[in-house]
Amino acid sequence: MSNVVVQNIERADADVIAGLAEQGVATVHEAQGRKGLLASYMRPIYAGTRLAASAVTISAPPGDNWMLHVAIEQVQDGDILVLAPTSPNEDGYFGDLIATSLKARGGRGLIIDAGVRDTADLKEMQVPVWSKAVFAQGTVKETLGSVNVPVVCAGELVNAGDVIVADDDGVCVVRREEAADVLAKARARTANEGDKRARLAAGELGLDIYDMRGRLAEKGLKYV
Amino acid sequence: MSNVVVQNIERADADVIAGLAEQGVATVHEAQGRKGLLASYMRPIYAGTRLAASAVTISAPPGDNWMLHVAIEQVQDGDILVLAPTSPNEDGYFGDLIATSLKARGGRGLIIDAGVRDTADLKEMQVPVWSKAVFAQGTVKETLGSVNVPVVCAGELVNAGDVIVADDDGVCVVRREEAADVLAKARARTANEGDKRARLAAGELGLDIYDMRGRLAEKGLKYV
Amino acid sequence: MSNVVVQNIERADADVIAGLAEQGVATVHEAQGRKGLLASYMRPIYAGTRLAASAVTISAPPGDNWMLHVAIEQVQDGDILVLAPTSPNEDGYFGDLIATSLKARGGRGLIIDAGVRDTADLKEMQVPVWSKAVFAQGTVKETLGSVNVPVVCAGELVNAGDVIVADDDGVCVVRREEAADVLAKARARTANEGDKRARLAAGELGLDIYDMRGRLAEKGLKYV
Amino acid sequence: MSNVVVQNIERADADVIAGLAEQGVATVHEAQGRKGLLASYMRPIYAGTRLAASAVTISAPPGDNWMLHVAIEQVQDGDILVLAPTSPNEDGYFGDLIATSLKARGGRGLIIDAGVRDTADLKEMQVPVWSKAVFAQGTVKETLGSVNVPVVCAGELVNAGDVIVADDDGVCVVRREEAADVLAKARARTANEGDKRARLAAGELGLDIYDMRGRLAEKGLKYV
Amino acid sequence: MSNVVVQNIERADADVIAGLAEQGVATVHEAQGRKGLLASYMRPIYAGTRLAASAVTISAPPGDNWMLHVAIEQVQDGDILVLAPTSPNEDGYFGDLIATSLKARGGRGLIIDAGVRDTADLKEMQVPVWSKAVFAQGTVKETLGSVNVPVVCAGELVNAGDVIVADDDGVCVVRREEAADVLAKARARTANEGDKRARLAAGELGLDIYDMRGRLAEKGLKYV
Amino acid sequence: MSNVVVQNIERADADVIAGLAEQGVATVHEAQGRKGLLASYMRPIYAGTRLAASAVTISAPPGDNWMLHVAIEQVQDGDILVLAPTSPNEDGYFGDLIATSLKARGGRGLIIDAGVRDTADLKEMQVPVWSKAVFAQGTVKETLGSVNVPVVCAGELVNAGDVIVADDDGVCVVRREEAADVLAKARARTANEGDKRARLAAGELGLDIYDMRGRLAEKGLKYV
Repeated sequence: MSNVVVQNIERADADVIAGLAEQGVATVHEAQGRKGLLASYMRPIYAGTRLAASAVTISAPPGDNWMLHVAIEQVQDGDILVLAPTSPNEDGYFGDLIATSLKARGGRGLIIDAGVRDTADLKEMQVPVWSKAVFAQGTVKETLGSVNVPVVCAGELVNAGDVIVADDDGVCVVRREEAADVLAKARARTANEGDKRARLAAGELGLDIYDMRGRLAEKGLKYV
Repeated sequence: MSNVVVQNIERADADVIAGLAEQGVATVHEAQGRKGLLASYMRPIYAGTRLAASAVTISAPPGDNWMLHVAIEQVQDGDILVLAPTSPNEDGYFGDLIATSLKARGGRGLIIDAGVRDTADLKEMQVPVWSKAVFAQGTVKETLGSVNVPVVCAGELVNAGDVIVADDDGVCVVRREEAADVLAKARARTANEGDKRARLAAGELGLDIYDMRGRLAEKGLKYV
Repeated sequence: MSNVVVQNIERADADVIAGLAEQGVATVHEAQGRKGLLASYMRPIYAGTRLAASAVTISAPPGDNWMLHVAIEQVQDGDILVLAPTSPNEDGYFGDLIATSLKARGGRGLIIDAGVRDTADLKEMQVPVWSKAVFAQGTVKETLGSVNVPVVCAGELVNAGDVIVADDDGVCVVRREEAADVLAKARARTANEGDKRARLAAGELGLDIYDMRGRLAEKGLKYV
Repeated sequence: MSNVVVQNIERADADVIAGLAEQGVATVHEAQGRKGLLASYMRPIYAGTRLAASAVTISAPPGDNWMLHVAIEQVQDGDILVLAPTSPNEDGYFGDLIATSLKARGGRGLIIDAGVRDTADLKEMQVPVWSKAVFAQGTVKETLGSVNVPVVCAGELVNAGDVIVADDDGVCVVRREEAADVLAKARARTANEGDKRARLAAGELGLDIYDMRGRLAEKGLKYV
Repeated sequence: MSNVVVQNIERADADVIAGLAEQGVATVHEAQGRKGLLASYMRPIYAGTRLAASAVTISAPPGDNWMLHVAIEQVQDGDILVLAPTSPNEDGYFGDLIATSLKARGGRGLIIDAGVRDTADLKEMQVPVWSKAVFAQGTVKETLGSVNVPVVCAGELVNAGDVIVADDDGVCVVRREEAADVLAKARARTANEGDKRARLAAGELGLDIYDMRGRLAEKGLKYV
Repeated sequence: MSNVVVQNIERADADVIAGLAEQGVATVHEAQGRKGLLASYMRPIYAGTRLAASAVTISAPPGDNWMLHVAIEQVQDGDILVLAPTSPNEDGYFGDLIATSLKARGGRGLIIDAGVRDTADLKEMQVPVWSKAVFAQGTVKETLGSVNVPVVCAGELVNAGDVIVADDDGVCVVRREEAADVLAKARARTANEGDKRARLAAGELGLDIYDMRGRLAEKGLKYV
């Protein structure tokens, strides 16, 4: 499956995606059993964004951004691009011109296991990017890749149509078919946290709220 | 000394701690003879904080945040948690719930040679953290560690009750018993800098203020 | 050529330098044939600056900032310091006092393949620095280096008087003698982008604007 | 699909696997279209091994090697273990005792995106390991993982039963169902190389053998 | 305690040290409760050495090897040098001349959280070194440090006279006063492993030897 | 100066080059004033080589090894290839086929700030390579670069015809026009070391041979 563009991909329900955005990365990651986190080196180019969107995936040759142009045609409102290079590099595949195009198509941003440039412009345009590097290094348009095939991005498998949740903590991927279930679990988790937060804020200890003292003693913790 | 919680630790004088906070990391580090800096990878999750606080130390197993709950019971107003894992990892030991608890106990923040999550919430709550990584990776509560034992955090030895000074430049540890002396030296240093700053601001050169020209010539510096 | 200070260096035309500042790193890098970028680890200590300035270069021993004082005497209005250590390290060669002196001489900032400290002060003073690390580690004044000799900084050769362009994307060096030509090419490039940006913003695809479909098909791209 | 052990996995044909071992990593990677390479940080603990084997995959919690024991029961003659932790770490999951057990079951070695220990013993026993680190850090047996589920190891997706090819160049994964086809292509490639090698050894240039001069001139290469 | 040389240090019993050498890093680390490992980046310059020796510690300025000469006078037969720089660097503090001197004094080798050079000579001389880097970068002799004070080397606290155990797996430090006890525990551990190794070599599974099946089932492991 | 091949380069005298090979990296680096070392991450793919050779430089696009073929035509007996990519990457530009060609032309090996593959074959062929990575990742032949232009390789400027000295310690570059002078200084240094080595081997201390005690005392070193 190389040098292909998969045109019709399934996406999760828009309400589910919106719900996941509210929950954020840490909660969603816990709710789905502590899986799906991209590597910690994937950092936002500016702070303060929290989003969820459907992945349009790109498998691109190193230092070659041709497939970005191909991918944008496949973007629908509410999608996010996820680019994984076929060999590690930090080149700046994405800048303000492509971002203009992405935004015009309703794209929400970019997850890229490589570099990005024109970051001041992207911040002004409010096109968020999570990347391995900020680097202006230019790319070529010589070699094909693929769009909407499964990719491994920053250590995690991402399929086209999977839900990407991203915020200041990083990036998490949720399988499209599990998205509704994960949202339900995340909401349950959040609901459950309200009471605990209030008790903790009032000075009660986690040791007591979670009833940990007995098990700690049993394991042999000694107070001196 | 494993699996222990040391309950009564000595702390430096509150006025000394407040004084060190005013001086900041770079000055304190110089004043105590250029020692005590944690590794440069320890970065604040948001800019603009300058603090000093007494260390409540945590030696924690990799990917296991149980001891954080134990440690918070030991926190007094004006303390800061210092967590060193027993094996390197980037897991997110600390998030908004534990931060709520820490804040309720008067804790000032966290120094962690691992990861942190819920960073947007922590910024909003103004609970500063200096960490090796921002990473949402969840942790377990299975294995004991220790609280208030000496730990090596990001390359520096930290004892319970030592003073932690932290700002946008990073983190510095001051031995509790040296804190008053270091503060005095830091203040002398700062006092001494005012005049120099004024002269430098007026365009006078360091070469002249510090009388360097002779020694440079003697060492063989050539102007061409 | 060691232990020398070159006193009279040529600089590019001030208008050319100002013009390059407007263009920014990514455009200048492309305009000069995709060369001259310093490594991606060179990051600004605060966001939002875009500048161009003439390089006053410093070759300094590891952990020894003596030559910074020597270099500042050579600084003219519109210059920027470029420090390359002779052995890799992250020590904090530069802080608020030297910054005060640099600013008084009309210096615009610092590019340093090592560390910097007093970053909160530098932000307040608006003295921008692009560095490998933020680290308060103090330095000594024991060993000579050179000023205004060619240096390799973060992987790129920089000659005294070359033009440094720096912004949130990183740092690019332009040869002094090529600066006017590069500016002309950068302006042509920017002029050319306005129309494309408008068309992309209107939803037209890069695939069509750049007429890529034929070549993609020829190379074997398959839509499925 | 968490906390499961998949017991019956399909493997590639033994002759195909043996054939791939002869071809080695670089050739197999090229033959399958330049895909499947694990990250370059995966290095052999001793030089000189070249092998191919069927993957028995392990998804293991950080710093917890319980699943290794579970996995060994699933190993058949000619298999290799592939361990991917669910959070990055360098702990020493594997040493001489487990290696003894693995060898007794016919296992050929280990691919691990973490650490290994007892490396001198493993070399003596001729149990090859490709790992991210050599590190004696002990692990616990507290938390479940899974065996023979798809894992992402050092940036590549590996399914149970996929063929692992490993040598001094690193590690490459071949999909089980593509293995025979990849072997055929690799053999064709190797056959084709014999003649070229002889001509190159005789001093003929690649420029001529591959007929590159025209295209180089066309692209604008200038000899000066 | 800076700029001092502590002349009379206590060492562990020679028989205990010899016993620890036989046990090796992984066993000693386990026997003392999984502590004391230096960071995994500390690698031997050549494979095949296993030793234990008493630490003569050096706190040295970055890029300055003066204190090595001072330290060698303090070396007794069976000691090993442990050098920790006061700021991170990779400079080559140690080469064949100093190694000649060290060997003449009965020193067994060097643990250095920085660089080493003349590695081919050192291998020929059989002077083993565990270091962060191999790097020929020369050092100066300008600034004092200390000898036989506590240092943090590659993340672990080392006191003068502590026992260093080092082999192909890396480096472990054992407190002098705990050395005899750790040796006893290591020997018990090793004795206990013989039977297990035989059973594992005969094909019996760790699952059965360690009686893990019940607890795995209880935790919820599912075979499919 | 892009997309050019410089055909006639000057080389240092063959005797001088042979002399530098005998001296090795550490001595040559010292003899020329502690300059010219490539970064410590440049490691030999196998131990035991010591060589000096004239640089044939290659500026190559990321992941594109076309220029290697062009460069080999420029190789004369006693040359070494030095490849610097225009953007950082680890791709395997060089393998056994190109090595066969290089060897047939009298080339001595390769210095590459990227990756290499077929390392087992290269070791057998005795074609030494110093590289940033061992990585089988294939490259393309699409974009031009240059041959025999100045390049920055692993942090050091290398001109065509400069002398490369490489051994197990790493790689050092000597300017062609300084080579004879550096050799003379290196020989003087080596001659001078024989006596010192004998005295050190006999147990005399560097403190005494180099007469350091007075200056140490003067700087304030205290023995306790």
